[in-house]
Amino acid sequence: MAKERLYLYDTTLRDGQQTQGVQFSTSEKKQIAQALDGLGVDYIEGGWPGANPTDSAFFEEAPQTRATMTAFGMTKRAGRSAENDDVLAAVMNAGTPAVCLVGKSHDYHVTHALGITLEENLDNIRASVSHVVAQGREALFDAEHFFDGYKDNPDYALAACRAALESGARWVVLCDTNGGALPSEVKRIVSAVVNAGIPGEKLGIHTHNDTENAIACSLAAMEAGARQIQGTLNGLGERCGNANLTALIPTLLLKEPYASQFDTGVSLEALAGMTRISRMLDDILNRVPVRQAAYVGASAFAHKAGLHASAILKDPSTYEHIEPDKVGNARVIPMSNQAGQSNLRKRLTDAGLSVEKGDPALVRILERIKAREAEGYSYDTAQASFELLARNELGQLPEFFEVKRYKVTVERRKNKYNRMVSLSEAVVVVKVDGEKRLSVSESLDDTGSDRGPVNALARALSKDLGRYSAQLEDMRLVDFKVRITQGGTEAVTRVIIDSEDSQGHRWSTVGVSPNIIDASFEALLDAIRWKLVHDGRAGQADAV
Amino acid sequence: MAKERLYLYDTTLRDGQQTQGVQFSTSEKKQIAQALDGLGVDYIEGGWPGANPTDSAFFEEAPQTRATMTAFGMTKRAGRSAENDDVLAAVMNAGTPAVCLVGKSHDYHVTHALGITLEENLDNIRASVSHVVAQGREALFDAEHFFDGYKDNPDYALAACRAALESGARWVVLCDTNGGALPSEVKRIVSAVVNAGIPGEKLGIHTHNDTENAIACSLAAMEAGARQIQGTLNGLGERCGNANLTALIPTLLLKEPYASQFDTGVSLEALAGMTRISRMLDDILNRVPVRQAAYVGASAFAHKAGLHASAILKDPSTYEHIEPDKVGNARVIPMSNQAGQSNLRKRLTDAGLSVEKGDPALVRILERIKAREAEGYSYDTAQASFELLARNELGQLPEFFEVKRYKVTVERRKNKYNRMVSLSEAVVVVKVDGEKRLSVSESLDDTGSDRGPVNALARALSKDLGRYSAQLEDMRLVDFKVRITQGGTEAVTRVIIDSEDSQGHRWSTVGVSPNIIDASFEALLDAIRWKLVHDGRAGQADAV
Repeated sequence: MAKERLYLYDTTLRDGQQTQGVQFSTSEKKQIAQALDGLGVDYIEGGWPGANPTDSAFFEEAPQTRATMTAFGMTKRAGRSAENDDVLAAVMNAGTPAVCLVGKSHDYHVTHALGITLEENLDNIRASVSHVVAQGREALFDAEHFFDGYKDNPDYALAACRAALESGARWVVLCDTNGGALPSEVKRIVSAVVNAGIPGEKLGIHTHNDTENAIACSLAAMEAGARQIQGTLNGLGERCGNANLTALIPTLLLKEPYASQFDTGVSLEALAGMTRISRMLDDILNRVPVRQAAYVGASAFAHKAGLHASAILKDPSTYEHIEPDKVGNARVIPMSNQAGQSNLRKRLTDAGLSVEKGDPALVRILERIKAREAEGYSYDTAQASFELLARNELGQLPEFFEVKRYKVTVERRKNKYNRMVSLSEAVVVVKVDGEKRLSVSESLDDTGSDRGPVNALARALSKDLGRYSAQLEDMRLVDFKVRITQGGTEAVTRVIIDSEDSQGHRWSTVGVSPNIIDASFEALLDAIRWKLVHDGRAGQADAV
Repeated sequence: MAKERLYLYDTTLRDGQQTQGVQFSTSEKKQIAQALDGLGVDYIEGGWPGANPTDSAFFEEAPQTRATMTAFGMTKRAGRSAENDDVLAAVMNAGTPAVCLVGKSHDYHVTHALGITLEENLDNIRASVSHVVAQGREALFDAEHFFDGYKDNPDYALAACRAALESGARWVVLCDTNGGALPSEVKRIVSAVVNAGIPGEKLGIHTHNDTENAIACSLAAMEAGARQIQGTLNGLGERCGNANLTALIPTLLLKEPYASQFDTGVSLEALAGMTRISRMLDDILNRVPVRQAAYVGASAFAHKAGLHASAILKDPSTYEHIEPDKVGNARVIPMSNQAGQSNLRKRLTDAGLSVEKGDPALVRILERIKAREAEGYSYDTAQASFELLARNELGQLPEFFEVKRYKVTVERRKNKYNRMVSLSEAVVVVKVDGEKRLSVSESLDDTGSDRGPVNALARALSKDLGRYSAQLEDMRLVDFKVRITQGGTEAVTRVIIDSEDSQGHRWSTVGVSPNIIDASFEALLDAIRWKLVHDGRAGQADAV
């Protein structure tokens, strides 16, 4: 049976930009557009030309794409012609091959929000769409609040869709603007629309995640006949976000019955870049990637339960619904005290350490991890500390240097302007190549503000490590997480430090102590040791 | 029409604990169980007794709950009787009124993972369930991999369910263990199960979020007849998590057709605490709450799009599918102080401070909070610090004492036995009733172990506060959370301290600074001030 074509419409650059706290720059928009084009979506909605300077600039400099670049706007306002509507003109002037205009399909919104008659609104839709078509562009009509509108007044909601289609719109997109529609409802209403004579090949679906059903609503609309799906990367978007294409596309390509039924513009090769694209977007937004994200999250194929982990080793399909590398992700068997020797060997291999099956070091490493976890350590995320622990047991960890002692002081008192200010100072004494070295550092930053004792310690520690100092210059502490946990019978502090360097490595280390400064210092030491172990090993897999 | 009863089964403490990086302590489990009980779920799955020390300890100390406390385990192994299976015995010994046992329903897993015959597996199910029932407990059977099993061999999958039901199980829970089933498929298969004669009133559904459809799959199963839904708070759980009850429960209670069709144990009053419960769990996990979370996220009712924000002011229902306060959340509209003031008065009343509508202090407090939040403070959970800030603006905060300066030192060096040990020491200078007082403290505990600089500071600070000292004797620091966050343009450290006293009060305070010690000291000061404000006010509501 021939497959049907299903179209993917990305609105990361428009609705995604409505996410609270998100504001793309023009160059970021270009970078995202290129990634989307490489992925193979059919349409890229670049923004609303004229609504803000960034969107206008993006269309001026928009990259050449295989995908149809689309400008977003709204139908013309009442009381003027489409040709004379300056808002619409700005959209047209972006010169994109496709234009998507949002308009009302819910009678209540027409009369209450716009304050015009129902017929005037239909005229606005017709005139606007005709204008787009007359200019030789592909026209899309976003039927705002379609599902609520259909529930209140199905005839009017359908009339709005027909007005657009009869004026030459390629697509009518059924929008669940407030995110309140549920999957069964979407299926029922889209089926009714198709039964009312509007062909599914002209219907798109635009959902929001306000009930955590944006993907399910998209699938429901598709099952009822819609052939265009709108969404965003990582589910960005107004309020709770839009349908998450990062999760939806793998489902469409890899899961039945969809995989056999539909063709999209995304190839299986491009799909294998999905995890990378998702992380790239988080990078641009300076967000910590969501570990539990479907398909692309760092935990999406992490098997923590003891029962699962042992079965996975026999046959991964037992607890995985797809193979992780199909989306560019990887299986993770977290190192916990339940994990067995084969898990351990897999994790050592990931860290570039190959150990023979049956090597007695495996037992020692497992026992060491168990003992450390009982003390409050956690190697779930602190892969670099795990690697150092293993290297130590395997005799593959040089000593580099020895810390003889340290002292850190924080003092808070009034300065000469009678303002309370703080000053942190750390003294670290190390022995490198048989030679004792004392270093002292404060922790004032460029603005004269005190960054605290951990910063002072980090500076003092890396200040004079003899022949190693140069290697630490490009290293920096990027995150610092602290939590109180149980270590044996007492409460201890667990510190996780994320570090990175100019070669693009990023690694996590852990320290535990009842004393937060000691715990931080231990994590710092591991971070430095990992860097010294790996320095110069370009191309080696990262340890986070 | 009489409503049907729908049962909610929470597995935050069991499957939720399979989340990568999550490891609850026994006291955290108790706290979560109490919150779940207050919410009104029907079952609380507390863990797997015998699988790890924390779970065993939890059941020993489990709080009295209205909800049915349930222990999780697995069906007996082949080759021994239910009575002689030590793993099952440990589960039974927890003494819970209900016991949920996971077993195989997918023939492939029986023969390949367990390596036993299909009939032996059915015997194990029967014997295990009968054993639970014979001991006077309610039995639940988790049919692992049910959907994959049904697709491969429907007869066997059904036989496993029947074996459990015929042996007296109250519920058979259809588990989509690897998270790969899609909503339509779930609906089709659960309908087939019901058509095969297994009553929906005995069917539960347990889904995972691997395709971001966990909630939709739960709803689909319910529409097909299942009457128990399993899930977790904030969607914790193995891999991508379980069905998120924090989003599912509001949908069941507030959205049609479900609201008219079903009764659950959750009242509308309890539902209004949903946002708070969700944040409490994030607090315990020291996680940043997900802004875009459905219903409870900080952005869930944030209207950023210009078109939306202006319509919202005319009529909130235009862009909101439910009223935010139904789930204890709040609308966020840029440049609107209207919503702010009534929220604020509500929060002040909660803190025992009554302020007249229109009091200019309300504007000052709002502005102060806004400014502090821009610096990195957060008053979501630090209710005690919020109260102190408000009292200060209202002129209702005595000064008590003034801190002139402090100094804290942490030194780590070898002791006389050549072991590295630490010692923290703090000096605090305060002025009380016009008199300057110097105090110094170390932070060694009874075992001679160093508890760190924050402990030393807390001791020194409360050591000599003149007439206030006696009031601080029963106060103790119970939790300490640290997070790196953005304050203005730089990264700052936010410290939240939970304190409690012998009168059963527990309160949270916040401090922010680039220096972790300063941030901690600020939170400590607030903790002491709150205690001094409230001392002797027995019966007053707690401030956490």
